[in-house]
Amino acid sequence: MNRTHTCGELRESHIGNEVTLNGWVQTVRDKGNIIWVDLRDRYGITQFVAEKTSVDENVFKTLQGFGREFVVSLSGKVVARQKGNPNLATGAIEVEVSSAELLNASKVPPFTIEDDTDGGDELRMKYRYLDLRRNPLQKSLKLRHKVSLETRKYLDSVEFMEIETPYLIKSTPEGARDFVVPSRMNPGEFYALPQSPQTFKQLLMVSGYDRYYQIVKCFRDEDLRADRQPEFTQIDCEMAFVEQEDVLNTFEGLVKHLFKTCRGIDFEGNFPRMTYDEAMEKYGSDKPDARFEMTFNNMNSVTQNKGFQVFDNAELVLGIVAKGCADYTRKQLDKLVDWVKRPQIGATGLIYCKVNVDGTFKSSVDKFFDQDAQAEWAKLTGAEKGDLILILCGDTNKVRSQMNELRLHMGTELGLRDPEKFAPLWVLDFPLLELDEETGHYHAMHHPFTSPKKEDIHLLNTEPGKVKANAYDLAMNGVELGGGSIRIHDRELQKLMFKHLGFTDEEAQAQFGFLMNAFEYGAPPHGGLAFGLDRLVATMGGSDSIRDYIPFPKNNSGRDMMIDSPAPIDEEQMQELGIKSIPVTAE
Amino acid sequence: MNRTHTCGELRESHIGNEVTLNGWVQTVRDKGNIIWVDLRDRYGITQFVAEKTSVDENVFKTLQGFGREFVVSLSGKVVARQKGNPNLATGAIEVEVSSAELLNASKVPPFTIEDDTDGGDELRMKYRYLDLRRNPLQKSLKLRHKVSLETRKYLDSVEFMEIETPYLIKSTPEGARDFVVPSRMNPGEFYALPQSPQTFKQLLMVSGYDRYYQIVKCFRDEDLRADRQPEFTQIDCEMAFVEQEDVLNTFEGLVKHLFKTCRGIDFEGNFPRMTYDEAMEKYGSDKPDARFEMTFNNMNSVTQNKGFQVFDNAELVLGIVAKGCADYTRKQLDKLVDWVKRPQIGATGLIYCKVNVDGTFKSSVDKFFDQDAQAEWAKLTGAEKGDLILILCGDTNKVRSQMNELRLHMGTELGLRDPEKFAPLWVLDFPLLELDEETGHYHAMHHPFTSPKKEDIHLLNTEPGKVKANAYDLAMNGVELGGGSIRIHDRELQKLMFKHLGFTDEEAQAQFGFLMNAFEYGAPPHGGLAFGLDRLVATMGGSDSIRDYIPFPKNNSGRDMMIDSPAPIDEEQMQELGIKSIPVTAE
Repeated sequence: MNRTHTCGELRESHIGNEVTLNGWVQTVRDKGNIIWVDLRDRYGITQFVAEKTSVDENVFKTLQGFGREFVVSLSGKVVARQKGNPNLATGAIEVEVSSAELLNASKVPPFTIEDDTDGGDELRMKYRYLDLRRNPLQKSLKLRHKVSLETRKYLDSVEFMEIETPYLIKSTPEGARDFVVPSRMNPGEFYALPQSPQTFKQLLMVSGYDRYYQIVKCFRDEDLRADRQPEFTQIDCEMAFVEQEDVLNTFEGLVKHLFKTCRGIDFEGNFPRMTYDEAMEKYGSDKPDARFEMTFNNMNSVTQNKGFQVFDNAELVLGIVAKGCADYTRKQLDKLVDWVKRPQIGATGLIYCKVNVDGTFKSSVDKFFDQDAQAEWAKLTGAEKGDLILILCGDTNKVRSQMNELRLHMGTELGLRDPEKFAPLWVLDFPLLELDEETGHYHAMHHPFTSPKKEDIHLLNTEPGKVKANAYDLAMNGVELGGGSIRIHDRELQKLMFKHLGFTDEEAQAQFGFLMNAFEYGAPPHGGLAFGLDRLVATMGGSDSIRDYIPFPKNNSGRDMMIDSPAPIDEEQMQELGIKSIPVTAE
Repeated sequence: MNRTHTCGELRESHIGNEVTLNGWVQTVRDKGNIIWVDLRDRYGITQFVAEKTSVDENVFKTLQGFGREFVVSLSGKVVARQKGNPNLATGAIEVEVSSAELLNASKVPPFTIEDDTDGGDELRMKYRYLDLRRNPLQKSLKLRHKVSLETRKYLDSVEFMEIETPYLIKSTPEGARDFVVPSRMNPGEFYALPQSPQTFKQLLMVSGYDRYYQIVKCFRDEDLRADRQPEFTQIDCEMAFVEQEDVLNTFEGLVKHLFKTCRGIDFEGNFPRMTYDEAMEKYGSDKPDARFEMTFNNMNSVTQNKGFQVFDNAELVLGIVAKGCADYTRKQLDKLVDWVKRPQIGATGLIYCKVNVDGTFKSSVDKFFDQDAQAEWAKLTGAEKGDLILILCGDTNKVRSQMNELRLHMGTELGLRDPEKFAPLWVLDFPLLELDEETGHYHAMHHPFTSPKKEDIHLLNTEPGKVKANAYDLAMNGVELGGGSIRIHDRELQKLMFKHLGFTDEEAQAQFGFLMNAFEYGAPPHGGLAFGLDRLVATMGGSDSIRDYIPFPKNNSGRDMMIDSPAPIDEEQMQELGIKSIPVTAE
């Protein structure tokens, strides 16, 4: 071993020891007669010092030749530092250099390797291997490592087995596009990369592995958004002989364990629970940020039929209360109006009502609503003196979604979304089916294997949109950490579901025949859940950028900027695979 | 939770308890007035009993309706068994049924779910989810789970971080064919699935993550052999600031930990080591089965120039000693001769020499070699009275490879390859380059990033075949468990290597530019190792069939028989991806 210690290890207790450390040169300060070198590795930073008069001439020269990010080996004696650096774990000591070796030089990096770097996004993606040297990213990856390991330890302790499922499979039914892999040995045929191990984990339940998990890559060929990656990692779990309550308790246990061991955070009591319907009513979202209140108020009863057409024509009038914001200036209010009118939000306007500290009201619709009417608003929404009521109206689904965005925006503005605060929330009783407004067809909200609630099955024919499922999500801080369901384990019910999803018997058999057949050989009741690891870790790290928690992410065009992939392959290889490139038809 | 206990849990201490168990019906024995049901889950088997006279009529009827592999829930009181079954962990008790519920019926499975099943290979692959219910496979997957988890715990305890590398990458340089993935968002371009995370783990060393590991799927589009799969799992590791000795010690520690925790086996002292050259001389293999001796003897000096042309024309005459086999019959010897002549072995013949118990010799070449000559053979090979010397001759490489096969065959015949005995062996100093006899070109034996031994670099131009590398394998019981090398971390040396491997500067830059560039920004000395997890677990399980240790393996045509994949995809999907199927050209 070249080194005796890491750069984060030396303390006062080491004073007097002869040590050798390896690492990267963080800084060199050359004062002519004395040189300081800060040496860095993933464990920390250690300061080395050499005085011209007391060190070998060649050693001093070697040190003078060092530059930023050079890889070096430094030896010497640990001594007390005259003025300790309390910001550095090793700040009590420094090392008097006795020998120095250059292991590898470095060009000047294209951006600084500091907590706050001067590198832009693209440059850092291209030189990801340098970006990964920076502290914030090292911290992210350490957290990810720890979360993965603690997940495994916990699940193992409650009898889960990690079982690997294949990557070269056949289409999975998650609804997104598959990535496919041409088969050279079976020309004209293709594997698909899994969108999730869903069918395999259900087969494992049929096989009797009653508690399965896997930390596994999944693939979706979707048009990418900021928080999506073509490949992402799931903590994928399934249990047999359980009901919903067992699944929720088991994974609530896991999440508590992770926060305890990886962040030192204890949650008190059980995670709150809320139905999907309630979440939509109160937050306009199935993944509410429950760190702060500011829940929705249905203001129809106090706003409609008072002669103001905008409200009268709306399906739903929603109001939220921004505490202490009655002193918002005209400019601030105009900015809010502009904000909700942005195409990303799409509201046609925003109505406000200030509950002034003197007890009077001031709204943008004073023409239509007198002081008494506005007092009713305050009463209904619970707004107090000094508060601001913000009102949106329109079609139910749209206005909820707009108000959700506004609520989150106000939460951020008012500093209510503390990244070090964590508010878990189980959202239960999801609808089984979702109407695709374009095609007019229903499709599975979760996936086609989700079990409908027994008491709702009779609605499948008449009011499919009202059928609830044994499906649940864990939301935290406005993020969906994970979700799952109790599955169908009965072949006949599964057939019925496929029918309602518009599959013919032949299509269902062709795509999922193996699963339907498996259900004939003794399938136990089962259910499960999957966490998105990238999001879970980012949320635990107090960030909403999953990219900082993925070692080698792709950009929004699905491109790895560092290795410059995807890339063309040569004709010969394509011929072997039995494929040919063709111009892409317009969609 | 539906159940109070698993089927492997109940003991005498539970007698008197009311319990509910869920599982699969292993057997029903209906004697008319009394019924026994054996209920199975992955934890074990529990016997239930019901007497017609003492149980509710409907319950008895329900039990009578049970068949093999039905999924059921049974409740009742735990009682002592009159005659315990010592072969069963739960054999001291049985459960008197008080209620019975059918959770799911089962068709009669196409083969028996027993340790020794009546199902053929193909049928079991098609119904893999049923095959996975069998004990031997459950045991395999449990071992695999445990090995994976203990690997992680151990590596974490010595500061390794698990870091995920991407699956959608660009060609890797392992020499096999890549599986590719057409990119819809970048038409005409392709991702490749990793043959290994080699370049990424080296980049992580440049990034300062000085101890990396990952349990990761790798992909090679090769023509399959019995022990190969298109996707397989590696324990992939890399360390910075280390020399070969550090790597060997670290992973010897891991392997010892795994055998200790997963098999209860302690290895005494350090693993033996041997150079590649010695392994080839003594065993004709770079992955010797060191559970037994029977090493090769170079018999040139005592066989050549005695007038027997077959020996005289041979480059190498090799003999091994089969202890106690002098009494082999003519038939047995003929069978051996036939065995080595099979095309898989390809020897032209086999010469034997019996060292009879009376001190005389009897060989198949008595015409050419008298008793004295044969006595010399015995002396050189160490054969004693009662032993049999088996001799092959020919070109060095061929005869070594043939003798390796014969040695393993004899080892098996003589019961020297005990699956419960484990003989690890480090094989060191592999050649850097390997001559491709077809093309006459050298290619990297390990991979192009392997560091040549410093003292051999000068031979690169003149005698490239003689250059040794800092490369090592861990062999066990005739299997290569893993291998690795110290890598090149110097851009200039890496360029030189690419030149010797026949890459132009442009080709090297196009394929590995990102790695070569990374080497300019402070690459530390580094090296690593990867274990084949499938093989490691199979070996630890005492088996040479990796398929039994892979949950969902593919067959020799790369086909998943259960889900029937690969499969055609539709025209529309191909068009979106910008590809078209074409007839495959003959190779």
